Amino acid sequence: MEEVVLLGFWTSPYVMRVKIALLEKGIEFQYREERDVFEDKNKSELLLESNPIYKKVPVLIHNGKPICESLIILEYIDEVWKQEQQLFSADPYYRAKARFWIDFFDKKTTTCGKKLWANKGEDQDAAKREFVECLKLLENELGEKPYFGGDHFALLDIALIPITCRFYTYEKLCKFSVEEECPKFMEWVRRCNMRESVSKTLPDPFKVFDFVLEVKKRFQIQ
Amino acid sequence: MEEVVLLGFWTSPYVMRVKIALLEKGIEFQYREERDVFEDKNKSELLLESNPIYKKVPVLIHNGKPICESLIILEYIDEVWKQEQQLFSADPYYRAKARFWIDFFDKKTTTCGKKLWANKGEDQDAAKREFVECLKLLENELGEKPYFGGDHFALLDIALIPITCRFYTYEKLCKFSVEEECPKFMEWVRRCNMRESVSKTLPDPFKVFDFVLEVKKRFQIQ
Repeated sequence: MEEVVLLGFWTSPYVMRVKIALLEKGIEFQYREERDVFEDKNKSELLLESNPIYKKVPVLIHNGKPICESLIILEYIDEVWKQEQQLFSADPYYRAKARFWIDFFDKKTTTCGKKLWANKGEDQDAAKREFVECLKLLENELGEKPYFGGDHFALLDIALIPITCRFYTYEKLCKFSVEEECPKFMEWVRRCNMRESVSKTLPDPFKVFDFVLEVKKRFQIQ
Repeated sequence: MEEVVLLGFWTSPYVMRVKIALLEKGIEFQYREERDVFEDKNKSELLLESNPIYKKVPVLIHNGKPICESLIILEYIDEVWKQEQQLFSADPYYRAKARFWIDFFDKKTTTCGKKLWANKGEDQDAAKREFVECLKLLENELGEKPYFGGDHFALLDIALIPITCRFYTYEKLCKFSVEEECPKFMEWVRRCNMRESVSKTLPDPFKVFDFVLEVKKRFQIQ
């Protein structure tokens, strides 16, 4: 009997990646929500023990063994549950390309993600330009395909779609429209949202917005 | 006929990873040294075309197709040349662990690597503490095994060993001894250096030191 536990937090796009992958694969799992992900003292013992280096969600605990870092977890899931629809292309070159774009996207969102909602003025404008530029590059990579994975919703789609639940927050706080900047990217977003794995996983963008406002208040970010 | 070209620069540990992997696999390749990796105007057309996003080495060009980012290249090599000794463990859990430690090491060396040779005073001391702490964690992960890969020199060994050619530079500029701090880690370094793939790839630490002094001079870093 397989025991699969996912430690998560509802606004984390990295956790959403793992949830979507598990749902796409049809893997039964137990989800445990962390109470708070900002202060170590509020984190569960299980999280602190399972990810002593970063103390961050997501952690996938498979038969007692913890696996950390979302992309590494996606690779693990695809390697262990091979009998289901594969998330990674069978072609090493396309696998490399998907890994490259996920890495690129993660680096970009790390550098400009927080600036979009926590900064003001020039810093925020620079982050907005960087973010839109990143989306345009991805839009270009998507091209005329229905999904980044081609005809199939696959790894890169799973890795990118969760952040889109923050678009409303970014647009509201930074005064821009992703739809205007990247209409084809938004077509892809709507296409993905029609999948059960995605619609069941992504939270309401309005609730995400309220949460970000709460975080700003908690940490006294104007 | 396979055409394998590696675009590199002699002091880049990321390039060394790829070289070692190719040598371990016994894959014939053509190596092209970049003249300068600091200014885009001095980079080769081939590099700028093959890695338009980052414009950085290493790039592996396999039958005309470019693959960027060292870890992604290692995964690609292992997936394409399957018939040779595998770099990745066959066990998904150990693969995940190796990926985790490489990612951790890359993040740490990105945050404290340059500070070790380009900063002074408190910033340098903080970077030194962070770097030693990182090595101690890796030493702990190594445990009593001859290699990170267990009995075999494998992925994590290949990913970590190149940075050790900078240890002399770090020790000289920051006044500390890796041997004193992490003796078991240094035993592993000597073990790896006995392999032809490693000894043929890693440059002379004294030349690396001279190069770093030149770079400091060029960019007027005191």
